[in-house]
Amino acid sequence: LSGAQLGLGLIGAGRIGRLHANNLLGHLPRARLLVVADVVEEAARQVGAPEAVTDYRRILDNPDIDAVLVCSATDTHARIIEEAAGAGKHIFCEKPIALSMAAVDRAAAAVERAGVLFQIGFNRRFDANYARVRQAVVEGEIGEPWLLHLISRDPEPPPLEYVRTSGGMFLDMTIHDFDMARFLIGSEVETVSVAAGVRVDEAIGALGDVDTALITLRFLDGTIASIDNSRQAVYGYDQRAELLGSRGLISTGNNYPNTAHVASARAVYRDLPLHFFLERYVDSYRAEMVAFVDAVLDGTPTPVGVKDGRAALALGLAALLSYQEQRPVRVSE
Amino acid sequence: LSGAQLGLGLIGAGRIGRLHANNLLGHLPRARLLVVADVVEEAARQVGAPEAVTDYRRILDNPDIDAVLVCSATDTHARIIEEAAGAGKHIFCEKPIALSMAAVDRAAAAVERAGVLFQIGFNRRFDANYARVRQAVVEGEIGEPWLLHLISRDPEPPPLEYVRTSGGMFLDMTIHDFDMARFLIGSEVETVSVAAGVRVDEAIGALGDVDTALITLRFLDGTIASIDNSRQAVYGYDQRAELLGSRGLISTGNNYPNTAHVASARAVYRDLPLHFFLERYVDSYRAEMVAFVDAVLDGTPTPVGVKDGRAALALGLAALLSYQEQRPVRVSE
Amino acid sequence: LSGAQLGLGLIGAGRIGRLHANNLLGHLPRARLLVVADVVEEAARQVGAPEAVTDYRRILDNPDIDAVLVCSATDTHARIIEEAAGAGKHIFCEKPIALSMAAVDRAAAAVERAGVLFQIGFNRRFDANYARVRQAVVEGEIGEPWLLHLISRDPEPPPLEYVRTSGGMFLDMTIHDFDMARFLIGSEVETVSVAAGVRVDEAIGALGDVDTALITLRFLDGTIASIDNSRQAVYGYDQRAELLGSRGLISTGNNYPNTAHVASARAVYRDLPLHFFLERYVDSYRAEMVAFVDAVLDGTPTPVGVKDGRAALALGLAALLSYQEQRPVRVSE
Amino acid sequence: LSGAQLGLGLIGAGRIGRLHANNLLGHLPRARLLVVADVVEEAARQVGAPEAVTDYRRILDNPDIDAVLVCSATDTHARIIEEAAGAGKHIFCEKPIALSMAAVDRAAAAVERAGVLFQIGFNRRFDANYARVRQAVVEGEIGEPWLLHLISRDPEPPPLEYVRTSGGMFLDMTIHDFDMARFLIGSEVETVSVAAGVRVDEAIGALGDVDTALITLRFLDGTIASIDNSRQAVYGYDQRAELLGSRGLISTGNNYPNTAHVASARAVYRDLPLHFFLERYVDSYRAEMVAFVDAVLDGTPTPVGVKDGRAALALGLAALLSYQEQRPVRVSE
Repeated sequence: LSGAQLGLGLIGAGRIGRLHANNLLGHLPRARLLVVADVVEEAARQVGAPEAVTDYRRILDNPDIDAVLVCSATDTHARIIEEAAGAGKHIFCEKPIALSMAAVDRAAAAVERAGVLFQIGFNRRFDANYARVRQAVVEGEIGEPWLLHLISRDPEPPPLEYVRTSGGMFLDMTIHDFDMARFLIGSEVETVSVAAGVRVDEAIGALGDVDTALITLRFLDGTIASIDNSRQAVYGYDQRAELLGSRGLISTGNNYPNTAHVASARAVYRDLPLHFFLERYVDSYRAEMVAFVDAVLDGTPTPVGVKDGRAALALGLAALLSYQEQRPVRVSE
Repeated sequence: LSGAQLGLGLIGAGRIGRLHANNLLGHLPRARLLVVADVVEEAARQVGAPEAVTDYRRILDNPDIDAVLVCSATDTHARIIEEAAGAGKHIFCEKPIALSMAAVDRAAAAVERAGVLFQIGFNRRFDANYARVRQAVVEGEIGEPWLLHLISRDPEPPPLEYVRTSGGMFLDMTIHDFDMARFLIGSEVETVSVAAGVRVDEAIGALGDVDTALITLRFLDGTIASIDNSRQAVYGYDQRAELLGSRGLISTGNNYPNTAHVASARAVYRDLPLHFFLERYVDSYRAEMVAFVDAVLDGTPTPVGVKDGRAALALGLAALLSYQEQRPVRVSE
Repeated sequence: LSGAQLGLGLIGAGRIGRLHANNLLGHLPRARLLVVADVVEEAARQVGAPEAVTDYRRILDNPDIDAVLVCSATDTHARIIEEAAGAGKHIFCEKPIALSMAAVDRAAAAVERAGVLFQIGFNRRFDANYARVRQAVVEGEIGEPWLLHLISRDPEPPPLEYVRTSGGMFLDMTIHDFDMARFLIGSEVETVSVAAGVRVDEAIGALGDVDTALITLRFLDGTIASIDNSRQAVYGYDQRAELLGSRGLISTGNNYPNTAHVASARAVYRDLPLHFFLERYVDSYRAEMVAFVDAVLDGTPTPVGVKDGRAALALGLAALLSYQEQRPVRVSE
Repeated sequence: LSGAQLGLGLIGAGRIGRLHANNLLGHLPRARLLVVADVVEEAARQVGAPEAVTDYRRILDNPDIDAVLVCSATDTHARIIEEAAGAGKHIFCEKPIALSMAAVDRAAAAVERAGVLFQIGFNRRFDANYARVRQAVVEGEIGEPWLLHLISRDPEPPPLEYVRTSGGMFLDMTIHDFDMARFLIGSEVETVSVAAGVRVDEAIGALGDVDTALITLRFLDGTIASIDNSRQAVYGYDQRAELLGSRGLISTGNNYPNTAHVASARAVYRDLPLHFFLERYVDSYRAEMVAFVDAVLDGTPTPVGVKDGRAALALGLAALLSYQEQRPVRVSE
C-alpha cells in the first residue's frame, strides 16, 4: 500500500460494527475509517466517520478504501465478500461467513481469485487468557494435549427474534468454541458428538433450537475436547478453558471488574465477572483489528482466515446432525 | 444392639483395610475392632487389633462381632458378602461389590434376605467438598441442575499387574465418579457415551484398557454430565466438580497441603495439591466409618447401600459397551 | 465554557506527560490537546499534538487553551501553577505539588484567588480496586473502619539520579499511599510513626534516603493504618489494600496479564502481576483525565483537589520527621 | 526412658487440656495418658483416662508418669512447673508460662536445675501454613527477610470475666504472634511500637484493656514486622502471614471447611473460614504433642522451649509499656 495509513470502510453499523469503528477511530494510528454504510442512514452517521452512506457499494467503489469490515446481517456476508473481493478490497468479516458450506466455498473462492487478504472475526483468539493457553501448547509447557474443556455460557438468552434467524446455537454461539478448540489444539476434529436439550426457555425449544449443550470432539491427534454451552448463566458471561497435557494442566478463569473480596459475617464474596462479551472481550476486539490492519499494511498473512471460518462451520453442521441423530458424526460426512 | 460399642472384624489387611482399621482404632469411641483376618497372618497381626486370623470365617463365627469390613480382593467381595449376611453380620464393603451384575444381584439378595445393614465404600460422598455441592443441590442454592462436570485424575497409573485384574478403568476408577454423579444430581442416568483412548502408556492399551476418557451422561431429569478421567496428572491427584444450575454455579477445587503462595522473580506459585487418595480423602474415610458405625448402632439406614453399588456397576458396564461400539448406550440395555 | 470540547495544553512531555497526551488524543471525545510544551522541542513534537513549543508561557497565553496539564519537573510545579492560575487556566498537576508546605500554600492561594479548577494526579483513586474499597466504606458494607493495610512496592528502585532529587521515598512514593489512606478512610490523620531502613541498595542509604518502610497512621476517627513500602519487589509492582471494619473485611489483590494457572510436576503457578505503574494503572490514568475534563466542562468540583495534595505532603513531612527522630509525630506539629 | 511408651499426666481438664488429652488418647501410639488432675473431679473423670484425681501432686508423685501437661489456670503455671521439675517430670506447658518475668525466670531456673525437657504450647509453629513460611526463610526461597505482616484476629471477644484475668490482649493474644514473628524471622526483636485502641467493645476498655492493635517490631537483623490484632472479625478466625524478602514474597491465607465457590446472580461467594482456633489449629495441636512425646522418648531437644516462652513474654510487656507511653520501647528496657 502506498500510504502509511490504511483506508477503511465499515459495512453495517450495528452493535459490533460500532465497536470496531470505535477501536479504529480511537486507538489505531495506522488506520483511517473513512466511510460507514448502513441501510439506516442515521445509524451510519452516528458512528462519526467522515462519510456516511446507505449503499455499501459506495464503499466498494471508493478508491481511497483499501479494506472493508463486513458487519452486516449474517445472510449478507457471503455476497458482500464476493463483491468486495471483486472490487479488490481486503476483507475483515464478522463470524460466521455463512450458514451453508456452499456459500462459504463460493466466498472463499472469490477471495482466493482476487488475492485479497481475509480475516474472520474470531476475536477470542486475541484474548490474553486463550492466547496464554495456546502459548503453553506451542511452547510445550504442558506437553502433548490430552483433554480440553471449554466453558462458554451467556448471561442470558438472546431475543427469540434473534434465535429464529441465527442458524441455531451451534452455528451462532458454539462456532466461537469450535474455532477456539481448533486454535488451542492445532489439529483438526474427526468426530463430533452432542448431548443437548432445552433447559433455559421452552420458547427456544419451540423454535427447534437448544439452549444447553455438551459437545464432545475427537481430534485427529487423539485429543478429546468438551464444549459446555448454556444460553444462561445467571452470574454472567462464563468463558473458561482448561487443557490437560502430558506435562501439566493449564486453566483460565473469568475476568472481573475488580480484585476485591469481601468477608462478611455470612460469606466471603466478590463482585460478579464482567457481564457479557462487550465488557469481557474489549481488548481482544481491539487486538484483532490491529492484527488485520497490520497484516494488510505489512503484506503478511492474516492470523485467522477463510479456512478457519470454513472449519468452524463444518463443525457446527456436524454438531447439528449429531444432535438430530443422537450419534457421533464424522466431520468428513 | 445391646452394647454401646460395635464389635467389628476386618477381612483383608491391605492398604485400604489398614486405613479403616486405623480409623477404628484411633478415632471411633463407639467401635471396637476385635479381629483382623488376612491370608498373610503377619499382615493381619500388624494391624494391631486384639486378634489376628488367617481364615475370615473365624470372624463370621465370632458372636462378639456385630459387623464386618470387607476389604479383600475384589473377586472375593460377593462371596464374602453372601456368607457374612448369612451369618447375620452387618457389612461394610469396599467398592466395587463385583464386576458382574449377576454377582452383585446375588450379593444384594443375600443382604436383603438376612436383613443386615450394608454400606459400600464410596467414601467421596463423605468429603466436605462434594458434600457441599450436594448441599447446594438439595437446598436449591443453585436451582435446578443443568450441567455437571467431574474431573477425576490420578497422579500416576497403577501397576500393570493391577490393571490386568481391575476390570478396566471404567469399573475401577470411573466407578467412583459414576456414584458421585448420581449422588450429586439425585437422579438416574439414562444414557452413557464414551470418548476414550490410550495416551499415558501404550502398555495399558496393550492390556485392552484405556487411560484417558471423557464420559457423557444424560440423566432422566435432563441433566447432562461429563466425567474426565486420566490415569496420569503429573501435578497430582485432581478431584474437582462443578455444577451449573438454573440459579447459579457451584465448583470445587483441589485440596492443598498449605495455603502458602510464593511470588518470585519468575512466577507466583504454590505447592502441589495433596498427592493421592490416601492424603486427599483422609477425612472422608473416617467419616464413612463413623456413618457406618452410627447406622448399625442406631438402627438407621446406611447412607450408601447395595442399590448404589449396583447402579455404579451398571454405568461402568454401559461405558465399556459405549467405548467398544462407539455409540451412546442406554443403561437399560 | 463555550464549546463542547475542552482545549488543553500539556507542559512537560516526559513519560507521564506523554501518557496523559495519549489518553487525550485517543480516547477523550470531549477534549482537544492543542499544544505541547517541553524544553526539548523534539520531545514536545513527538507527542503528536497540533502545536509543539519550548516555552510553556506560549500555552498560558493561548486563548484557545482552557486548561493545562502540569507534568514538568516537580520543582517547577508550584511556580507554573501560580502562573497558570494567574492566566485563568484550569489546572491538572502531577503529584506532588511541591516539596515544601510554603510552596504548596502559595500555589493553593493562587488557585483559590483565580477561581480556577485544580486537580492533583492521584490517579489511584480512579483505579477499580481502590474505588471498590472506598465504595465498601461509603456504603457501610464493612461497617466502621478499624484497621487498614496498604501494600505499595515497586518492582525495582529508580535511578540514583532520580532518588537524589525526588524528595525521598516518603515524598515521592509514599505520598500516593498517604493520599490513598485518606481517600479510603475519609478522615484525617493525627499521628505518623515510621519504622524504615535501607535493605535494597546501600547507595540509596548513602544519599540519605530509605528504601524499605512500615508507616503507622492513626486517624482522628480511631482507624489505625499501616503502609508497607519497598523500592524492590522482585515479582513486580505490588499494589494491595485491605480494610477491616466492624462488619467485615475488604481486600484487593494485584492485577495480572491473564488468569491462566499452570499445574506442572513441580508447582501450580501463574504469570507475574503487571510489572509497573504504566501497565497496572493504565485505566486509572484515563479515568482521572476524563474526570478532569468533565469537571471543567460541566463546572463541577474536581474529585481530588489542592487540599488533598497539601494533606499528603503534610503526611510525608511528618513521616520524615518521625523517621529522623524515631518517635510518633503529630501531623499538627 | 525404659519403655516404648511415654507415661503422661494431665493437670487441668479445661478446654485445652481436654484437647490435648483427646490427641494423646486417640492418635499417639507412643504415649499413654495415665492420670488426669482437675480441682473439679467430674471434669477430670470425663476425660476418660485410667485415673482421675483432684490433687495434681498425685501426678507428680506417680513414678509411672514421665511427663506432665500443665493446662491449669495461667497463674498456677509457674508454681506447677517448679514442682514438676523438682519431681523430675518432663513438662509441656500451655502459654504463657507466667505474666511476670520474675516468675518465668524462677520456673526456667527450676527446669534447668532439674535437667528436664520443657516445651511451651506455641502450637502455631506446627501449623502447615506457618511452617511453610519458615521453610521459605530457612531454605532461602525468598532471600533475606525484609517486611513481615501477621494478621491474627479472633471471631469474637472472650467473656469480660476472662479479659479481667488474662493479663490483657498483648499477653493473652499477641503472645502467639510475638512467638510467631520470632519463629519466622529467626532473629530477636529490638524495639516494639504499639498503636492500639478500643473499637470492638467499650467494656473491654473499661477494664483497662484494648481490643484492636497494630504492633510494629524491629528485629536486630533489620527486619520490620507488623502484627494486626483484633478481638473481633465477624467473618471468623483470621490467621495469615506474609513475608517480603530480597528474592520474593510468601503469603498464607486462611483455612476453609471446603473449597466450594458458588456463583449466584448476586455474587461469587464461598463459606466462611474455619471459625476459631479449635477448628483451625486441630492438626497443629496434634503435631506439637507428637513433637513433645518424641523429644522426651528420643532424648532430643524440644522444638520450642523456656527461652521462647520468656522472649514472647518480654515482647508482651514491652508492648504494654509502648502502649501506655505512646513511644517505641526497646525490649532491653
